[in-house]
Amino acid sequence: MFFALVIALTALSGWAHYFTQSSGLQFVTTSAAIIMLAALLGRATENVAHYAGERIGGFLNATFGNAAELIIAIFLIKEGLFDMVKASITGSIIGNLLLVLGLSVIAGGLKFKEQRFNPILAGHNASLMLLSVIALFIPAVFLKQLKPERIDTLSLIIAGLLIIAYILWLIFSMITHKEELADQAVEEEIEEGQRWGKGFSIIMLVVATVFVAITSEWLVHSIEEVAHALGWSEIFVGAFVIAIVGNAAEHSAAIFLALKNKIGASVEIAVGSSLQIALFVAPTLVFVSLIFGKQMDLIFTAYELAAIGVSAFIASSISRDGNTNWYEGVLLIVVYVILGAAFYFL
Amino acid sequence: MFFALVIALTALSGWAHYFTQSSGLQFVTTSAAIIMLAALLGRATENVAHYAGERIGGFLNATFGNAAELIIAIFLIKEGLFDMVKASITGSIIGNLLLVLGLSVIAGGLKFKEQRFNPILAGHNASLMLLSVIALFIPAVFLKQLKPERIDTLSLIIAGLLIIAYILWLIFSMITHKEELADQAVEEEIEEGQRWGKGFSIIMLVVATVFVAITSEWLVHSIEEVAHALGWSEIFVGAFVIAIVGNAAEHSAAIFLALKNKIGASVEIAVGSSLQIALFVAPTLVFVSLIFGKQMDLIFTAYELAAIGVSAFIASSISRDGNTNWYEGVLLIVVYVILGAAFYFL
Amino acid sequence: MFFALVIALTALSGWAHYFTQSSGLQFVTTSAAIIMLAALLGRATENVAHYAGERIGGFLNATFGNAAELIIAIFLIKEGLFDMVKASITGSIIGNLLLVLGLSVIAGGLKFKEQRFNPILAGHNASLMLLSVIALFIPAVFLKQLKPERIDTLSLIIAGLLIIAYILWLIFSMITHKEELADQAVEEEIEEGQRWGKGFSIIMLVVATVFVAITSEWLVHSIEEVAHALGWSEIFVGAFVIAIVGNAAEHSAAIFLALKNKIGASVEIAVGSSLQIALFVAPTLVFVSLIFGKQMDLIFTAYELAAIGVSAFIASSISRDGNTNWYEGVLLIVVYVILGAAFYFL
Repeated sequence: MFFALVIALTALSGWAHYFTQSSGLQFVTTSAAIIMLAALLGRATENVAHYAGERIGGFLNATFGNAAELIIAIFLIKEGLFDMVKASITGSIIGNLLLVLGLSVIAGGLKFKEQRFNPILAGHNASLMLLSVIALFIPAVFLKQLKPERIDTLSLIIAGLLIIAYILWLIFSMITHKEELADQAVEEEIEEGQRWGKGFSIIMLVVATVFVAITSEWLVHSIEEVAHALGWSEIFVGAFVIAIVGNAAEHSAAIFLALKNKIGASVEIAVGSSLQIALFVAPTLVFVSLIFGKQMDLIFTAYELAAIGVSAFIASSISRDGNTNWYEGVLLIVVYVILGAAFYFL
Repeated sequence: MFFALVIALTALSGWAHYFTQSSGLQFVTTSAAIIMLAALLGRATENVAHYAGERIGGFLNATFGNAAELIIAIFLIKEGLFDMVKASITGSIIGNLLLVLGLSVIAGGLKFKEQRFNPILAGHNASLMLLSVIALFIPAVFLKQLKPERIDTLSLIIAGLLIIAYILWLIFSMITHKEELADQAVEEEIEEGQRWGKGFSIIMLVVATVFVAITSEWLVHSIEEVAHALGWSEIFVGAFVIAIVGNAAEHSAAIFLALKNKIGASVEIAVGSSLQIALFVAPTLVFVSLIFGKQMDLIFTAYELAAIGVSAFIASSISRDGNTNWYEGVLLIVVYVILGAAFYFL
Repeated sequence: MFFALVIALTALSGWAHYFTQSSGLQFVTTSAAIIMLAALLGRATENVAHYAGERIGGFLNATFGNAAELIIAIFLIKEGLFDMVKASITGSIIGNLLLVLGLSVIAGGLKFKEQRFNPILAGHNASLMLLSVIALFIPAVFLKQLKPERIDTLSLIIAGLLIIAYILWLIFSMITHKEELADQAVEEEIEEGQRWGKGFSIIMLVVATVFVAITSEWLVHSIEEVAHALGWSEIFVGAFVIAIVGNAAEHSAAIFLALKNKIGASVEIAVGSSLQIALFVAPTLVFVSLIFGKQMDLIFTAYELAAIGVSAFIASSISRDGNTNWYEGVLLIVVYVILGAAFYFL
């Protein structure tokens, strides 16, 4: 029944995308398909998390979620649309840190008075977020004084350092200090009827992610037309609309897990996804741009830097104690709406 | 005896205000009256805190203290003096976070080696302070790119969001998570001779607050003349002189409670008062300005933003662990004096 | 054997400095001498720490290390080279916070899975670092609006406040709250053969520090020629090359102690040294400049402020929990390399 609905809606949105011209119809059908696919992804993630442990499950989810964004960004770079790439990187970071994390914390917080996760992990996440902010902030500060070719070299060096830092972080968190960062959240059993086999869970995770990526791109196309009709600016669409849709998978999975009192996994999805974008996707795109002959630099606008910096600070401040409640989710959402309004009026 | 002195000095300062022309005489008599009224307010607060619990007592105190400032600010807005309103908002925030908190922590710290308060509350206070800084910082960053009418709309949206965040905070801290935020400070009994009845305590709290508000305004008038004679700038008077006098009540009450080892209540007065100004008084004034026909925006100057940001960071850094000692108070006062010197020379 | 090698290399570098013209030869011999002298200093520090306790030992080390820098800076001020003084102050602060601390944490972290030190001390260090950043940030923000003579007065006031804050910090940490800040690190005995007498240890500490200071200056001279030949900019040499060499003593001592699992003493050397430079050396130099007739102000460039601010934030974020591991050291080094690359291209 559930699977039938997922397949039907996905097929319907494909039909709307390829055989109709109405962006309104495309928008509605694709949105519905994404919601169901995201629910499928949520179930698959929970099953994989059951076999792999919460953190690996969260890491897999973050990776599959960002694979879609990486692919979309590569197409944009091929077209030389560097500003839109940076806007969507910004949007993904703040969308995950504020919207995904905020909604998860509220959802979990309304059901449970207090949710706990590993404070050591929270501390490391905060330091890594700070590194991301520093890495994007420094080139912008030194910008005025530097010659263009030096900006490109500096961007390459910083991109290389971030990728090294990210690989070492994987070694640290997956190998040398795996136990310390493990989550002590209460193990909650998946109901018998919903438990899938190990292999099937992994296949479903991959299939759901792929289809979320495909349909997300369809949605992006239809939304751009809808946005144009409504008079929204390109930066607002890049940083908010695309990012919200592109992170739908993370959204539903993170909220789903928060409602199961696995807030540690929600944080891993939301914060882990942001870190992966800042420390791995963004610097990788700098190197990818070299392949296409024109290098993208790491200079973000003051608006983008302000948004990323502010998001990192409030998310750190809230998650640092390894403890969440509904009001902390409200604070994240309030900051997200303030940023959304500011970008909307830009 | 005590009550007679309070009444006599208040009457004397009223006489000086209405029947003499000497701003020097007005300054001296009104200062003396405020000191006694503030002492009365301190006693009343302690008595109410005895019946209501420390946090509610601190909240009441912060509210009554800020009612005076709200009223003064409304008169300033009616006159269109938006810059002075923002300077006095800035001054109230940094005065509470640095001067009131600093003196309380030093006073308490010289008497007790270490004073403790609820670290969960401290963490939430830090996050709320950060929200305040973000809410004032974002419009200033986006300022240059925005058209004037959009700045006004953005200011209204942010003001609305802050008021919602503040109301939800009251629901969170007073209703859903009351116990978690309760202070575990040692219950200290008020001496028999000084304990008042519940009703009388509340009446005294209200009466003392009203008279502090009235006499504060008298003092503001006389001080402005004194300041003019001494050649002080308007922004320095707004952000430092008026704020110190206007917060005299919070000062004495917070120090009084710190000396009684109720540092949790002192923090609630100082930090709570700052938060109330940033999250409730300032946005309310934006809406109030609409009534008078000309909207005040939320764009603060770079100097004001630097002062507020710096104060929030150092106060968070010091209070985050729920633990204070005299040296932490020294740090707050040093930052206050640095800011005071910088504004003085502006 | 060890002592013979130290004496031989120091003599050799002295010969190269005074009797040869080859800056390449001078560079190699002096570097070798400094490495051995620094090893001697490390042993002396460990012996003194054995008698005096870890924190006093760390404090002594930081003081002796900075005495050399203070003397070099006074010569620069006499020549009116204020910009180079500020660059070397910046370099010393970030070199200690990022490079010395980073290498110590990595070295200790590769040997021990997790190293702990007193979190109360870490919290105070973080607040003091924040004070340093604020004290340098405020004059820069208010700069544009101030008249030159007022900048000088403001610099004097802030310098005076910082020295007062530093003296009160010594009273706080050495007298009133000595126990609270004491390090609970496991007492580890120095092997019998390596333990020196109390008097001899102190003499060696002084002698080694003096010779490190002398040879560091020789190295600075030869390095400046080498740098010129290689085409490095003055600010890069001031903030990175001089600072690395000038802090060689702190480097080896801090790493040596980290490998002995005395990370508390390493942090005290690295962070304590930064704080001493920011809160004591820099403001003292402002007053010293008055003696030479032309006052140095406290206005740092945006690049220097960004570097100091960023270093203070990441170092605080990492050390706040009183707990270190190898990856936290990696983060510090990554930020150091990013800053080094940015200054190199300036």
